[in-house]
Amino acid sequence: MRTIVYVGTSLDGFIARKDGDIDWLVKYQNKEVHTSYHEFISRIDAMVIGRGTFEKVIEFPEWPYEKKVFVLSSSLKQIPEIINDKATLVAMKPAALLNYLSDKGFSNIYVDGGKVIQSFLKEDLIDELIITRVPELIGTGIPLFGYLDKDLQFEHISTNIYSDGLVKSQYKRKR
Amino acid sequence: MRTIVYVGTSLDGFIARKDGDIDWLVKYQNKEVHTSYHEFISRIDAMVIGRGTFEKVIEFPEWPYEKKVFVLSSSLKQIPEIINDKATLVAMKPAALLNYLSDKGFSNIYVDGGKVIQSFLKEDLIDELIITRVPELIGTGIPLFGYLDKDLQFEHISTNIYSDGLVKSQYKRKR
Repeated sequence: MRTIVYVGTSLDGFIARKDGDIDWLVKYQNKEVHTSYHEFISRIDAMVIGRGTFEKVIEFPEWPYEKKVFVLSSSLKQIPEIINDKATLVAMKPAALLNYLSDKGFSNIYVDGGKVIQSFLKEDLIDELIITRVPELIGTGIPLFGYLDKDLQFEHISTNIYSDGLVKSQYKRKR
Repeated sequence: MRTIVYVGTSLDGFIARKDGDIDWLVKYQNKEVHTSYHEFISRIDAMVIGRGTFEKVIEFPEWPYEKKVFVLSSSLKQIPEIINDKATLVAMKPAALLNYLSDKGFSNIYVDGGKVIQSFLKEDLIDELIITRVPELIGTGIPLFGYLDKDLQFEHISTNIYSDGLVKSQYKRKR
């Protein structure tokens, strides 16, 4: 089983503004970025997001995810019936959720959303980090990373440079 | 005149642990990193540091800087006589300091130290960022970046990959 973070950040490490806005990020969307994202999605088989991400994407005109989504939340009570086949609400700790997903036959898990990523990293449950940095400082917002009890060492796998100055680096956890 | 930040950070954007320790950073020092640093130093003609950096380097067995150093501090009263020819104490705002340095004939200024870098960025007075990221999360510490009143867009110039997984990216301010 493999857990992977695939995320875009500002140069100063934010994944969104305080209000969730990603205007500064989407302006860098281009064909290369889309291709990279779809290549990545093709190698995962489930996705874990938190309440914050869920409440954002549920507002979109269309459900944006192709793969099975697990919404990790202890406060959400239910998920709208219309997306019952696409998303499942789970109220578990990260380690228990991974056991549950493994039992269900999932093996490549995309972990997304600031708080979810941080809670997985805090328990050293992320195997791979793929971070695309846009060449911009936004000064404040929702940070990608949070407090950790210990250092986590990674191995650099590859770095790609895209037009518009995006730098995508892929790292694997060194255990 | 050109102001340049050249700094090593953890993947989560810290330049030192809370107590100033850079054990996690120095373990990645190698010949490539030294060569890169010395190439960079050869193209600057003065350096601006803050009290934090000054009080740290003054403890070193030898003064570590080749170029003229300006110590930006309103709380320091004087600098030890023995390094009077190497370092000058200045109590100015960033913009005033740059005018002062320009009048003195300096044109490529290395800006270093967390608080000093942040105070220059806050006034949009940094022209170039050269950031080398080590493949490690340290979870807490002294952050490279701080709050900004506005977005600052940069242009990606180049990215180099070093052995041990260090990724150095160079950016120029887009004005």
